[in-house]
Amino acid sequence: MTERLVVIGGDASGASAASQAKRGNPDGLDVVLLERSEWTSYSACGIPYWIAGDVDGPSTLVARTPEEHREAGIDVRMGTEATEIDLEARRIVARDSDGRIERLAFDHVVISTGATPVRPDLPGIDHQGIYGVQTIRDGAAVIDHLGGFDTGGRSIDRAVVVGAGYIGVEMSEALKRRGLDVTILDRAPEPMTTLDPDMGCLVRKAMEGFGVRVLGCQSVDGFDADRRGWVRSVCASGTSYDADIVILGLGARPEVTLAEAAGLDLGSSGGIRTDARMAVGGHEQVFAAGDCVESYDRISQSWVHVPLGTHANKQGRVAGINIAGGYARFPGIVGTAVSKVCDLEIARTGLGTATADRAGFRYEMVTIESTTLAGYLPDARPMTVKMLAELGTGMLLGAQIVGREGSAKRIDTCALALWNRMSVDDLMQTDLAYAPPFSPVWDPVQIAARALVAKLGR
Amino acid sequence: MTERLVVIGGDASGASAASQAKRGNPDGLDVVLLERSEWTSYSACGIPYWIAGDVDGPSTLVARTPEEHREAGIDVRMGTEATEIDLEARRIVARDSDGRIERLAFDHVVISTGATPVRPDLPGIDHQGIYGVQTIRDGAAVIDHLGGFDTGGRSIDRAVVVGAGYIGVEMSEALKRRGLDVTILDRAPEPMTTLDPDMGCLVRKAMEGFGVRVLGCQSVDGFDADRRGWVRSVCASGTSYDADIVILGLGARPEVTLAEAAGLDLGSSGGIRTDARMAVGGHEQVFAAGDCVESYDRISQSWVHVPLGTHANKQGRVAGINIAGGYARFPGIVGTAVSKVCDLEIARTGLGTATADRAGFRYEMVTIESTTLAGYLPDARPMTVKMLAELGTGMLLGAQIVGREGSAKRIDTCALALWNRMSVDDLMQTDLAYAPPFSPVWDPVQIAARALVAKLGR
Repeated sequence: MTERLVVIGGDASGASAASQAKRGNPDGLDVVLLERSEWTSYSACGIPYWIAGDVDGPSTLVARTPEEHREAGIDVRMGTEATEIDLEARRIVARDSDGRIERLAFDHVVISTGATPVRPDLPGIDHQGIYGVQTIRDGAAVIDHLGGFDTGGRSIDRAVVVGAGYIGVEMSEALKRRGLDVTILDRAPEPMTTLDPDMGCLVRKAMEGFGVRVLGCQSVDGFDADRRGWVRSVCASGTSYDADIVILGLGARPEVTLAEAAGLDLGSSGGIRTDARMAVGGHEQVFAAGDCVESYDRISQSWVHVPLGTHANKQGRVAGINIAGGYARFPGIVGTAVSKVCDLEIARTGLGTATADRAGFRYEMVTIESTTLAGYLPDARPMTVKMLAELGTGMLLGAQIVGREGSAKRIDTCALALWNRMSVDDLMQTDLAYAPPFSPVWDPVQIAARALVAKLGR
Repeated sequence: MTERLVVIGGDASGASAASQAKRGNPDGLDVVLLERSEWTSYSACGIPYWIAGDVDGPSTLVARTPEEHREAGIDVRMGTEATEIDLEARRIVARDSDGRIERLAFDHVVISTGATPVRPDLPGIDHQGIYGVQTIRDGAAVIDHLGGFDTGGRSIDRAVVVGAGYIGVEMSEALKRRGLDVTILDRAPEPMTTLDPDMGCLVRKAMEGFGVRVLGCQSVDGFDADRRGWVRSVCASGTSYDADIVILGLGARPEVTLAEAAGLDLGSSGGIRTDARMAVGGHEQVFAAGDCVESYDRISQSWVHVPLGTHANKQGRVAGINIAGGYARFPGIVGTAVSKVCDLEIARTGLGTATADRAGFRYEMVTIESTTLAGYLPDARPMTVKMLAELGTGMLLGAQIVGREGSAKRIDTCALALWNRMSVDDLMQTDLAYAPPFSPVWDPVQIAARALVAKLGR
């Protein structure tokens, strides 16, 4: 007898779960994939590059179309939004784009409802021309706006980006490269609060070097509009900043409306809490994955909400394997993230000073300057590495990298060291790839580890 | 009472050992550094880039001059060659550039005599214009030759490189970029025998694409010269190849003449065998480090000779700390190496099929194609990853990467995974940095690991 799996949400995690489940049990599972938009399996992280003009049209960002999912045997329902999960009756209520309501019985369900960009309740927030950047629809709206299609020919010259996190800095580059005058406002003193402030300061200075105006310690008071309702300025900390377009980069909250209404437990981060198999506690038929769940941070030993495509894909795969009758486990995260703004590369993994303090660690830290290649080669670029290690054990706690081309992916070395709970002594000694066009003879990561070993007196 | 440390050889390992020992025990140690050439602490790996013209003059390659070492309190004796180590009498015999002999008593000695390029005993091997590339003097000789300074104005148009290992491929690029017609000959069917032949084949095709003639299965019979004694052609497998310059890239053997004469034990690889503190077995006052020693390979669990600057620096540091009365241990290697030829990047770590077979492993392997960045970005470049994992345990055994810009440093992720004896299941799940300008959403290394997990039926 076939069972039915209903997957709510057809982006990274949902589509991965559906594909993996169908592949794992092609005859025993009917897989229904509900997606409210007109897109499946797309790279939301690619939207800034589409807006910048690096990538043509949204379809390039799509890894797998609805048709491709259908060819794989998945019953894809586009334009269809789940409105209720009835756990008792094992039934999903869904509404299609024509408003028709359908009730779908399920044996298994995957909740992959993603995250919703934070949109603060401020005066004027609903003016036209204020965009989050989360979905392909958002990207298309920004591109239309920049092209002046909707604004009645008003010249779009000045952008204000609110929030200097990953999306904020990436969008500030995209807009700058489209020739706009860009101001980025953030509540914190320095951009990229996932870095320590001293590393964020390097990001700010580099962005200023590219001609982006970066203003910290700003509290946004509201937005003014022209007579036609299009945003005209952003008011922050008592000053008005002219804006022909506003981008909100204030992060995203797990979209858990359905899960909450169904009575499922949420974690302290606000995301759905799952076990390591991505099953939602106490409900063996209910799985969740992607930006709507919280993940276990192996270093701080706490649950965190980190909406990233790479986790979503892995979690979806794990859910799909388990639903198909296999066994897979999502082992948690260490907090690795990377971003680029012009030719500046920014990466972090593990804990920074604030999160290490909060988790109760006592630690030593160093910041070192090095180069991406052997320093004598003309293409060598500067990079800065900050590293934290625990007192006593010398265990690596976290690393941050800010540098030019060729810097950031080195964070993976630190991520693997964290994953394996390595000490900085051990990290310093590992056999990393060396040749002059790739690294100084001591890799910058190992220079930082060596400095920490010395500072810890080990 | 001060003790005397004599260090034989002032390049990477010797200079590191001397510096570290002096720093660790500045008042208790007199450190004498004997160096037969006129250079200390230089990057031998940088010589091809000097020859290519990326780097001006040899002094750029010098990390620390004799004067800088002297300022750090080290008694540097340039142009001075050790000719005997008398362990019984604890005395070094050394000869300076004027032929004067000195006898130096020691309490500790570090042997860092490096490696000697293999120079096969073939007819004509002593003709002029046939160079190994190991020392700054070699580099200067090649540059002089290419400039026609010594050859009586003979035009230098055609180069033959014998041996297609790291030095061979790097030198073929350097010579190509200087406008020469380059042929590279190797005994094996494909270049880079530290890779599996299928990956070496990718290197050959790329090199051919750059206009380098790559000939495998060649056995060099000898060299012909013009009437003035300068090389004119290389004869290999019965064919004569015109050559105005010949580069030998046949690897290097540990330089152990002094150690052997002193009765010290050599390992099966021909290098000096040390313990983890870099002490030479049974002689607590004798240490060795760098290209003259053999290193413990953590994966094959055997001793190997891997002459690389990165190991030399680490081993020298370890020896210096121990001599200064501290404690440090060199934990071995996993066989990581990286190289570049034009815009092709080549990397490997751990075991390939031949070394895995030899070590008795049973394994599964995959080769996957991916891209350096998100595939939809215009700068995404192709890369190929080959990966081996053990049957049963799924433990990663080795990885090889061949690809365009942005590929090779990913080998560090595999090196850390090997270091920590991770399974490919675990590697697949780790939290690596993802953003479109840095990686596909599954990093290529994780795509390979995932394919291996599937193939192993895990």
